[in-house]
Amino acid sequence: MAKDVEAEQPAAPEFSAKDYHDPPPAPLIDLDELTKWSFYRALIAEFIATLLFLYITVLTVIGYKSQTDPLTHTGADAACGGVGVLGIAWAFGGMIFILVYCTAGISGGHINPAVTFGLFLGRKVSLLRAVGYMVAQCLGAICGCGLVKAFQKSYYTRYGGGANELAAGYNKGTGLGAEIIGTFVLVYTVFSATDPKRSARDSHVPVLAPLPIGFAVFMVHLATIPITGTGINPARSFGAAVIYNKDKAWDDQWIFWVGPFIGAAIAAFYHQFVLRAAAIKALGSFRSNA
Amino acid sequence: MAKDVEAEQPAAPEFSAKDYHDPPPAPLIDLDELTKWSFYRALIAEFIATLLFLYITVLTVIGYKSQTDPLTHTGADAACGGVGVLGIAWAFGGMIFILVYCTAGISGGHINPAVTFGLFLGRKVSLLRAVGYMVAQCLGAICGCGLVKAFQKSYYTRYGGGANELAAGYNKGTGLGAEIIGTFVLVYTVFSATDPKRSARDSHVPVLAPLPIGFAVFMVHLATIPITGTGINPARSFGAAVIYNKDKAWDDQWIFWVGPFIGAAIAAFYHQFVLRAAAIKALGSFRSNA
Amino acid sequence: MAKDVEAEQPAAPEFSAKDYHDPPPAPLIDLDELTKWSFYRALIAEFIATLLFLYITVLTVIGYKSQTDPLTHTGADAACGGVGVLGIAWAFGGMIFILVYCTAGISGGHINPAVTFGLFLGRKVSLLRAVGYMVAQCLGAICGCGLVKAFQKSYYTRYGGGANELAAGYNKGTGLGAEIIGTFVLVYTVFSATDPKRSARDSHVPVLAPLPIGFAVFMVHLATIPITGTGINPARSFGAAVIYNKDKAWDDQWIFWVGPFIGAAIAAFYHQFVLRAAAIKALGSFRSNA
Amino acid sequence: MAKDVEAEQPAAPEFSAKDYHDPPPAPLIDLDELTKWSFYRALIAEFIATLLFLYITVLTVIGYKSQTDPLTHTGADAACGGVGVLGIAWAFGGMIFILVYCTAGISGGHINPAVTFGLFLGRKVSLLRAVGYMVAQCLGAICGCGLVKAFQKSYYTRYGGGANELAAGYNKGTGLGAEIIGTFVLVYTVFSATDPKRSARDSHVPVLAPLPIGFAVFMVHLATIPITGTGINPARSFGAAVIYNKDKAWDDQWIFWVGPFIGAAIAAFYHQFVLRAAAIKALGSFRSNA
Repeated sequence: MAKDVEAEQPAAPEFSAKDYHDPPPAPLIDLDELTKWSFYRALIAEFIATLLFLYITVLTVIGYKSQTDPLTHTGADAACGGVGVLGIAWAFGGMIFILVYCTAGISGGHINPAVTFGLFLGRKVSLLRAVGYMVAQCLGAICGCGLVKAFQKSYYTRYGGGANELAAGYNKGTGLGAEIIGTFVLVYTVFSATDPKRSARDSHVPVLAPLPIGFAVFMVHLATIPITGTGINPARSFGAAVIYNKDKAWDDQWIFWVGPFIGAAIAAFYHQFVLRAAAIKALGSFRSNA
Repeated sequence: MAKDVEAEQPAAPEFSAKDYHDPPPAPLIDLDELTKWSFYRALIAEFIATLLFLYITVLTVIGYKSQTDPLTHTGADAACGGVGVLGIAWAFGGMIFILVYCTAGISGGHINPAVTFGLFLGRKVSLLRAVGYMVAQCLGAICGCGLVKAFQKSYYTRYGGGANELAAGYNKGTGLGAEIIGTFVLVYTVFSATDPKRSARDSHVPVLAPLPIGFAVFMVHLATIPITGTGINPARSFGAAVIYNKDKAWDDQWIFWVGPFIGAAIAAFYHQFVLRAAAIKALGSFRSNA
Repeated sequence: MAKDVEAEQPAAPEFSAKDYHDPPPAPLIDLDELTKWSFYRALIAEFIATLLFLYITVLTVIGYKSQTDPLTHTGADAACGGVGVLGIAWAFGGMIFILVYCTAGISGGHINPAVTFGLFLGRKVSLLRAVGYMVAQCLGAICGCGLVKAFQKSYYTRYGGGANELAAGYNKGTGLGAEIIGTFVLVYTVFSATDPKRSARDSHVPVLAPLPIGFAVFMVHLATIPITGTGINPARSFGAAVIYNKDKAWDDQWIFWVGPFIGAAIAAFYHQFVLRAAAIKALGSFRSNA
Repeated sequence: MAKDVEAEQPAAPEFSAKDYHDPPPAPLIDLDELTKWSFYRALIAEFIATLLFLYITVLTVIGYKSQTDPLTHTGADAACGGVGVLGIAWAFGGMIFILVYCTAGISGGHINPAVTFGLFLGRKVSLLRAVGYMVAQCLGAICGCGLVKAFQKSYYTRYGGGANELAAGYNKGTGLGAEIIGTFVLVYTVFSATDPKRSARDSHVPVLAPLPIGFAVFMVHLATIPITGTGINPARSFGAAVIYNKDKAWDDQWIFWVGPFIGAAIAAFYHQFVLRAAAIKALGSFRSNA
């Protein structure tokens, strides 16, 4: 019967064939993974993707700030000389779009420990894979920020190093809330875009799934750059903190781990227990009607 | 014969399987819906989606205004410090894109009482479902704005609370006209994107339908932010008015209910009586040629 | 044999079934069209789409200029208060994206006499249909601009009425050249996106064809707004000139008819004689290899 | 067996039928190509596409700089009068999106000698074709810049001619590094988007492949415009240098050839030896499971 349904859905017949999309929940610890090249290849892909993500985005932030520094630029030029805050938000969202597109078939395209944590809670990846991905992502983020610092050390340090810090005028609770809801938006979109049950019913869902995921990141940056600089990705916040290495960035660091992990957990719960439980039932009735 | 046509259109075979896409008109009152979990799940999805919509967009508006306040920022910085009006328009359009994408398979992805009203007039949803959706959307909008106010109450009140108000220099008739035509653009796009007859004929129509719907919202915001701040979504205007709660926002509130509902009604009429009637005929002749 | 090829390309089996995509060249005069409701429906769709196109885009232009008028706004606010030139370019490109998406199945989604002229030269539409479309487009453009003027007559007149005029510092030859090449980019993209031969070979070409068409309009506006305000659409230039009705707009009007028509003719020639002739041959050899 | 897999993947059955996607590596020298019209047609398509790319993008750069020149515009207007650096980045990325879309079926849509070099190293195109493409691209770039200069010679020369030069404050090593990593991002995306092995497994990968490729160009411009003006395309840098013809542009020219070629080589190596080698194995095990 499952075969029949697949035969009727030719637009995405192998979408669920990717490792973390298989209906049976991923085992907590699957030592068998360690013997496969595809596991190490996925770690490499996550490392490179997170490196490129931090490199492009932090370079955009530093370039924008260097072009609009009121100390080195005259009046109006100081305000509008660069890509703007809108350009920075595009850099974060657009990079996630292309990197998820490029790595989806290799590693699932997480590039974010909060996404990995959410998919682990949803039993889409094993514990072993989740830990491996997070380590690869953090190392990649450190290297990406390191490259930017190596390019122009004085600019990097002067313009904040792309580090996430709570802005003046907002308390810690607000920063934590902004990170929780922002990560919820992202991980909820990831679950929606990769749900094999839904892709079986709506032909447009699996098409270009990386685009809404990238847009989710873009949207959250538009909203929360004034509050926290927008983390919603612990590897991004950690990598920038390691290379920038100032007290303020480290003092606020916990917000950018606790917030995203709570947000991802709520998104996993919302998808698996509220939306998905019913999705399975609906599919059941749909199949019996077919 | 219908089966043959479907078999030839594998890109979207189940697109019309979603509840509100079924060719037979939805009944006015379908008490049977009340016994299904999928109905309540759809209400939850509309509530959460409208909450996230208002949260991200109003936070973007407040953040932009706080970063460009001429009282707290110096000259040029006051003009270009935030994401700009363009960034605000992106926030509204982009959120609709990702939220329609995420909820299309659960609730149909309305997130807007005017869209629900238009689809009810087109007999795509029952009266019961339409009323339920509108209540869920308004509650979600109130909660979304409430979150933004909870984050930073003084900024929220000082920078207008994201409420829709008629700008100085425009009369009420113009505001109403702007809301009518703006909502027409949106609901016309929704009807075009979800028409099962057309999706059977043009393979590219059902693909990524949420993208043109999001762009329609983006476009209308570019054009009418200077006039009304752009409503075209009564839940969005109502939620902001409830939390902001100033006289001006309440005085203009009727514009943001009457305008969108008239616009949605015209779009439903245009699609069902001008475009769709003929679409059925054209499909008839197409089938007899096959 | 054709049937075999179609059976192997299920992603777009009916794409070539739309009226103007049929391989046999459209007759010059097809009186039979006059007896079909689909012909009049297409005229209505072109009229409404061009009306909405001018309404949204000219309103965006007027709103931007009213928000950045140095006479009514102070220093920095005058420069950056609106959606910016980038927002105007998005309005033109984004509206073409959604309107082509919405009307593609009804009228082919021209919304532009130059596109209609190019497709007529490529024998995709009959002479009768081409003339009917152009009249509907010009009437729609006049009505769209008229709506904007009705909204706020003083702003409309003060801020140039969205009319296309040659900017100071550029001679007429440059303006004509900019319109020719700009329209070539647009019509070349239209031919590429709707070519039935190519859609049979590349699965990604027919998917979301309206998006690259909209982007082509966006791109040309980025480049030529400083020169001519960017026409590349005689209906858009004509409608704005009729409602604005100043000498300068009428004096330059010929540029916005001659330029786009020459550009469309070159694109039709390039596609039909350079690219398409060979495409047919290539497909021939491809079929014999199959 | 391969036939079976294809039959199960109807979304992209002919994607691998394009000349440079065939699994067997392209021969180094294939004199047979010289006898086919499709070879010369591909050269024409690359020439025209690169011409349009340079024409639109350099015109956008010159138009922006002429509208924000502090010598001819007053304070704030000088800062925000044009499309902004963000608009310039969109022009480069958006043009690559539409040109790859339009030429993908004719020439493969390279429009960039670095992309051609990367695909040659990956054995996707023959040496003969690679050299032919590069010559056509460089000639097209020269003609595109020449058109912009012909339009407004004084503006073209005054505002830098769109030439790539190393910005003050960055050393040559940084410029070279920025070009290497930027081109890596682009060519890695090209390999990911066109990989026939992956398109067989993930239904969303081949859909609208030009979009992520265009976004990759957009992203790299956001990040490196402040450093080198962003080359990542030797034809673009060479064409601008030939027409602008100032010492500084020629002195830095080597960076814009060596950098992109090294970046493309690393991307080809990463894709072919790290990701692809394993992809073949994974597909092997996948097939045997089927």
